[in-house]
Amino acid sequence: MRQSQLFTKTQKSAPKDEVSANARLLTRGGFIDKLMAGVYTVLPLGLRVMKKIENIIREEMNAIGGQEFEMPALHPKENWEKTGRWSAMDDLYKVKDASGREFALGPTHEEVIAPLMKKFVSSYKNLPFAAYQFQTKFRMELRAKSGILRGREFLMKDLYSFHLTEKDLDEYYEKAKEAYWKILKRVGLKEKTHLTFASGGTFSKYSHEFQTLSDAGEDTIYICEKCQNAINREIKSKTPACPACKGKKFKEAKAIEAGNIFKLMDKFTKPFDLKVRDVDGKEKMLVMGCYGIGLSRIMGTIVEVYHNENGIIWPENVAPFKVHLISLGKDKEAEKIYNDLQKNNIEVFFDDRDVSAGEKFADADLIGIPWRAVVSKKSLAAGGAEVKKRSEKKGKILSADVLVKNLR
Amino acid sequence: MRQSQLFTKTQKSAPKDEVSANARLLTRGGFIDKLMAGVYTVLPLGLRVMKKIENIIREEMNAIGGQEFEMPALHPKENWEKTGRWSAMDDLYKVKDASGREFALGPTHEEVIAPLMKKFVSSYKNLPFAAYQFQTKFRMELRAKSGILRGREFLMKDLYSFHLTEKDLDEYYEKAKEAYWKILKRVGLKEKTHLTFASGGTFSKYSHEFQTLSDAGEDTIYICEKCQNAINREIKSKTPACPACKGKKFKEAKAIEAGNIFKLMDKFTKPFDLKVRDVDGKEKMLVMGCYGIGLSRIMGTIVEVYHNENGIIWPENVAPFKVHLISLGKDKEAEKIYNDLQKNNIEVFFDDRDVSAGEKFADADLIGIPWRAVVSKKSLAAGGAEVKKRSEKKGKILSADVLVKNLR
Repeated sequence: MRQSQLFTKTQKSAPKDEVSANARLLTRGGFIDKLMAGVYTVLPLGLRVMKKIENIIREEMNAIGGQEFEMPALHPKENWEKTGRWSAMDDLYKVKDASGREFALGPTHEEVIAPLMKKFVSSYKNLPFAAYQFQTKFRMELRAKSGILRGREFLMKDLYSFHLTEKDLDEYYEKAKEAYWKILKRVGLKEKTHLTFASGGTFSKYSHEFQTLSDAGEDTIYICEKCQNAINREIKSKTPACPACKGKKFKEAKAIEAGNIFKLMDKFTKPFDLKVRDVDGKEKMLVMGCYGIGLSRIMGTIVEVYHNENGIIWPENVAPFKVHLISLGKDKEAEKIYNDLQKNNIEVFFDDRDVSAGEKFADADLIGIPWRAVVSKKSLAAGGAEVKKRSEKKGKILSADVLVKNLR
Repeated sequence: MRQSQLFTKTQKSAPKDEVSANARLLTRGGFIDKLMAGVYTVLPLGLRVMKKIENIIREEMNAIGGQEFEMPALHPKENWEKTGRWSAMDDLYKVKDASGREFALGPTHEEVIAPLMKKFVSSYKNLPFAAYQFQTKFRMELRAKSGILRGREFLMKDLYSFHLTEKDLDEYYEKAKEAYWKILKRVGLKEKTHLTFASGGTFSKYSHEFQTLSDAGEDTIYICEKCQNAINREIKSKTPACPACKGKKFKEAKAIEAGNIFKLMDKFTKPFDLKVRDVDGKEKMLVMGCYGIGLSRIMGTIVEVYHNENGIIWPENVAPFKVHLISLGKDKEAEKIYNDLQKNNIEVFFDDRDVSAGEKFADADLIGIPWRAVVSKKSLAAGGAEVKKRSEKKGKILSADVLVKNLR
């Protein structure tokens, strides 16, 4: 894509009301735009990143047998009353129509998926199975202040699994945990992330959070010095030893909850009477797991982890483009390389604008595409384009052919 | 995909409260599930269709220079007050948070995109440009009764274009019109669709609707017998002659509005003061066009047009799978063909369930995948699978190799 044609522009400074690095850099780079606190437009560059993250998650969900579908955002009040969450959930947005009927704007979808499955699951032979969606969620955050880390409206992947026995749920839960590690690895967050024991509510012992270390994090975790697993603040006081290794020394750290997984047991199947006949003909209540990961939050967390004073440094798997091609007064030659890269299906962002070299370099650093290739009089005299990684200081001259070969 | 693993099941009869063919067949086939009137879950088979439609639309929007992005669903009240639509729009859902602040749930996005563009567009050099999104819209329909043709919550593609002059808008409008015809052709609806002149509001002469003939349609159009363009009911009384050819004879017909395009002129740029400096330094208000097409409605319209008494007959471009492979007691042989098809990237739905032949055939007709390949003792003796188009009565025997070759 040609930078001259992109309708967004970079900005020299961030909006005054944005304090988090993710919001400041993503706004300045033209990835997102704040409509109001906690509510953002995802601009073309940002959408490219989000789609990369989405596809990674989709592949890993499909790999553990997840079936993709999509539930609505408007939920009937009755479903939420049935689970008691219509009144118990403080951050539930409620909508009333002209006839006085009330709806919830879904912050999560147990109240929709459990009754849905009642229509399809009738025998133990239908089990286990898992279904997931990418869906916009709504949560009434009165003080949204961490950029896209905590929104009133945000894109989330939620997977739900259904099982006949707790043992079967346990097995699937471990598979889902592994899938989450694969996702985090592919988006570049695994190394900084700690599996964190959290409360399992009244119905299971622990749930697990994937907590990524960051000073921008709103959460505090306590990392076991022995096994590197962690416990969250909520269970800290009542958990003297590490649930994983019994270690007793913990290090406090700030972290962002990148994802969480939860054995819901029969908490939501019971209110909707989601039972099947077992192999011996007896009726059995299903047990359920849920597995969430926020896509906008993942994008924000990546920026918190991967940036420097000049801008974002995208990991290749989630970068909006692979290479930022910059023409410094050598449009004809750059144009040829642009076409070569495109022909070879290399995602290229082409800075063909009529602005200064300094502005082009500053924008490239801010936007943070992993590779930068500069075509100038000097680079051409040396035999090609000056190619540099965003994460490194020094570049080298590569001919167009070698550049294509290296990036393919 | 294996049919035995799909979490949805087909249903012999449709819910009593569904009257439209689209809702009845899509529900029975396991494409959608009604959560409440006008609000549907899109099940795995339905999502496959929606993604096909989405990709077709995306390709055609990109081809006319549209840049994809995503605006939020929650809108600040102030933006809607600025255009007067906070009180003027009857079907606007309003949400109040705990602090008393009010939001609109977006039924359309002019109130978001116009102020957004004010941040980026400063000179005539930035123009023209166009941006689009796929986004869930909300409309307070008190009596939603046409299945997914008219929902309270529905997926829509909306494109917005921005121009310095009316002439430039006119030119782009014609390009967008052509793109809409291409989309309709690819999803199989072009032949039954009439370009329909509709009111242009107070600010332009006409807008245009793409009206697809169907008895299920909620709209009435008047088709010019001479040129086959049409006018809608709203402008019928004040439009004695066809705006396209001056013809005076019209034929009344029921139709579904599959899409619409509108020259908004400065209706939304003015309230948000979206001006740029012209080439001669003078300030000029931008003019704007908008172009909408509902994806859930397109899916519903396709079903209304393409079905018979036994079920849906998907056009190939939007079908959930290309071929429905059915094993009648010959699982080993069918399994081999399933693998061959998958290896060749042919989208195959494999009925490996342990149910009767009659049930398998009935389900295949109901689900409506374009090709059906039956593997039975009889077909194997004759040299392969019995292959039949959903739209035809008679099939023929094809060897596995020829089947793969034909479908590739």
